[in-house]
Amino acid sequence: MSVESTNPLDHLIQILGRLPSVGSRSARRIALHLLEDKQGRMRSLGHALERAADEIEKCPDCGNLDTLSPCRICQSEKRDRTQMCVVCGVGDIWAIERTKTYYGLYHILGGVLSALDGVGPHDLTIDKLVRRLEHQDNQVQEIILALPATVDGQSTAHYISDALHDKNVTVTKLARGVPMGGELDYLDDGTIATAFQSRR
Amino acid sequence: MSVESTNPLDHLIQILGRLPSVGSRSARRIALHLLEDKQGRMRSLGHALERAADEIEKCPDCGNLDTLSPCRICQSEKRDRTQMCVVCGVGDIWAIERTKTYYGLYHILGGVLSALDGVGPHDLTIDKLVRRLEHQDNQVQEIILALPATVDGQSTAHYISDALHDKNVTVTKLARGVPMGGELDYLDDGTIATAFQSRR
Repeated sequence: MSVESTNPLDHLIQILGRLPSVGSRSARRIALHLLEDKQGRMRSLGHALERAADEIEKCPDCGNLDTLSPCRICQSEKRDRTQMCVVCGVGDIWAIERTKTYYGLYHILGGVLSALDGVGPHDLTIDKLVRRLEHQDNQVQEIILALPATVDGQSTAHYISDALHDKNVTVTKLARGVPMGGELDYLDDGTIATAFQSRR
Repeated sequence: MSVESTNPLDHLIQILGRLPSVGSRSARRIALHLLEDKQGRMRSLGHALERAADEIEKCPDCGNLDTLSPCRICQSEKRDRTQMCVVCGVGDIWAIERTKTYYGLYHILGGVLSALDGVGPHDLTIDKLVRRLEHQDNQVQEIILALPATVDGQSTAHYISDALHDKNVTVTKLARGVPMGGELDYLDDGTIATAFQSRR
């Protein structure tokens, strides 16, 4: 960590530069953009941050971020309580919700197992997932593992399948194959091989 | 302008997405990153914004942003008061200061003349520049126009040269040529032509 700057402008640029996908050049541009309209832009960002910090909670059931607790999805009467989709983080829920093809529940793991990064089973919410399935109100019949198609993602999927083997649920994974608009020429060999093996 | 969202999370993402060089995907990532550590990251960004809004002022002389008013550069005993560099914005001052080759004063125009964007001479601080040169304490002998190498930048430079023709100052412009590390093959024709004409 670099030393905190005492100059408020440098300090703001430093803080902005630590945000994901914001480099030092963008941080300077953002700081200038905000300072050019202190009463408008700067204040509205400040208020939006304050409001989000005050009102948004992590759902005690699935781990989603929402103003309601439990979250809108966990509370909804319209969701299919026989399906539960296991994802890494909130961003994955948003991505799946945007597709409007899934209407079940979710469970956020908080990451994937990783020997390199020192992430073990107890750093994730795998125990909590098992407890949710053991709960008396539980109606889940299918666990859909929507984890990254990486080595760590796949070993996490394997670990979870093992942990659930004595529960009365079907464990499925997202299909692998050629993405929409994907040209074979630009795809990696692994994807092409999997798409071939899973052809139908 | 899109309608303000009533959900604090969507609202925060909307506000973040309006910042320069932040798209909707980055805005979502930043919002998640902040919400993951509300007590730490989110609060420190909030405080940094508040502090910057409270403490940073526009310098009444040159237009620079600083906690002092007039700014550190305008106040400094060490700066050369015979030179004044005319730039578009604060970011340009930062870029020039990083080079540590210029020790004179600055004057921020606030943009360049642009017929397309409807920016006329009175939208810029050209009158103020003339008044600064007429001030009794004025010692400026050289005005360095460090404006963009675009059509608008060059017509602005021309306009300022005209406006200062009866003032007792030399008006210079930044040299044009091949940038450091620039390969001729990748440079535009205009730059190569200028570099040829200004060869030494």
